[in-house]
Amino acid sequence: MATERIPDIIIGRLPIYLRALQRLSDQGIQTTSSQDLGAIVGISAAQIRKDISQFGEFGKQGTGYSISYLMEKLRSILKMDRVWDVIIVGMGDIGHALAHYNELANRGFHVSMVFDNDPKKVGQPVGDFQVLDSAGMIEKIKHHKIKVAMLCVPAASAQGAADQLVRAGIKAILNYAPISINVPEDVKVQYIDPVTHLQRMTYYL
Amino acid sequence: MATERIPDIIIGRLPIYLRALQRLSDQGIQTTSSQDLGAIVGISAAQIRKDISQFGEFGKQGTGYSISYLMEKLRSILKMDRVWDVIIVGMGDIGHALAHYNELANRGFHVSMVFDNDPKKVGQPVGDFQVLDSAGMIEKIKHHKIKVAMLCVPAASAQGAADQLVRAGIKAILNYAPISINVPEDVKVQYIDPVTHLQRMTYYL
Repeated sequence: MATERIPDIIIGRLPIYLRALQRLSDQGIQTTSSQDLGAIVGISAAQIRKDISQFGEFGKQGTGYSISYLMEKLRSILKMDRVWDVIIVGMGDIGHALAHYNELANRGFHVSMVFDNDPKKVGQPVGDFQVLDSAGMIEKIKHHKIKVAMLCVPAASAQGAADQLVRAGIKAILNYAPISINVPEDVKVQYIDPVTHLQRMTYYL
Repeated sequence: MATERIPDIIIGRLPIYLRALQRLSDQGIQTTSSQDLGAIVGISAAQIRKDISQFGEFGKQGTGYSISYLMEKLRSILKMDRVWDVIIVGMGDIGHALAHYNELANRGFHVSMVFDNDPKKVGQPVGDFQVLDSAGMIEKIKHHKIKVAMLCVPAASAQGAADQLVRAGIKAILNYAPISINVPEDVKVQYIDPVTHLQRMTYYL
């Protein structure tokens, strides 16, 4: 599989397919078609077939896709055939919500540590966790070889915290701070900012 | 301005530009260039110029963009030259975090009502709000002519809640439930699912 040159836009759709397949599987369904999957996720059947065929031939003309087989393949492609440790930096409302969010564990991510730099928050319990002091963050990330972080600090602190994460060896940052951050080429960033999503829709109203 | 055929991918970048311009403006900066803006948001200067030129000529060769002027234009294009009322449906951890999220008000969205169907939550105070019973949601949305909703219910309830929102006249749904929802053509949906964003990055690890 020459997967190196697959456009990122296609990679971005695979988790959507995987999520839909998981729901079908949870309902006891064993096979699906690109038409049925497309109706669920709102993407054309042709696009789904094209996306999936980038990685090999996982379906059969006429019989469609085996859900468990396609899930296994998608998990493998997305490197989700393992559990990823992930940390949360910034224990405000969003950090707390994420610390309690079962979907992370259900879909392959284990929150292993949570950090804040506020002395009032450090040491406090959050579910099964205790908030750790950001001052020791770099060492702890290095020690546990964590590669994935969710950044939930205020905008003004985001670049500084991102720099620390990069120094600690983090390679994937899900940034909830409402600000663009600069990281080296080999570090991936994805953004979650509800306002940008809302504004993308108000354009059409 | 023939804006009807502007690709959605371009519309999706305008809020990012607006967010960055706001930060520059907050720092007292009055002009910027596509190069400087590009460095901040991680998008090429050529792409930024091309995106913005879809809507008119807002910058001058050599002198760059007036930040306040460009912000005004982008706000107008995105229909953010007004405040939008928005409701939150589902007052779990994420709904609570959003109800307290100042960025919404700071950037043009006023949370006007919050709903839940859990009798234990209905009537409870959440910041300045009181949780309203979902049973009366359609009437209240219609009465106040609300067009924008944030959907924060569990996956199993999301389609049913979305159907209600559509019946009530909602035209833009920011869906936090980890499931694809089906809505009529004239209703926009954007998705926020941290797991799909994380999986899009693990591919590269």
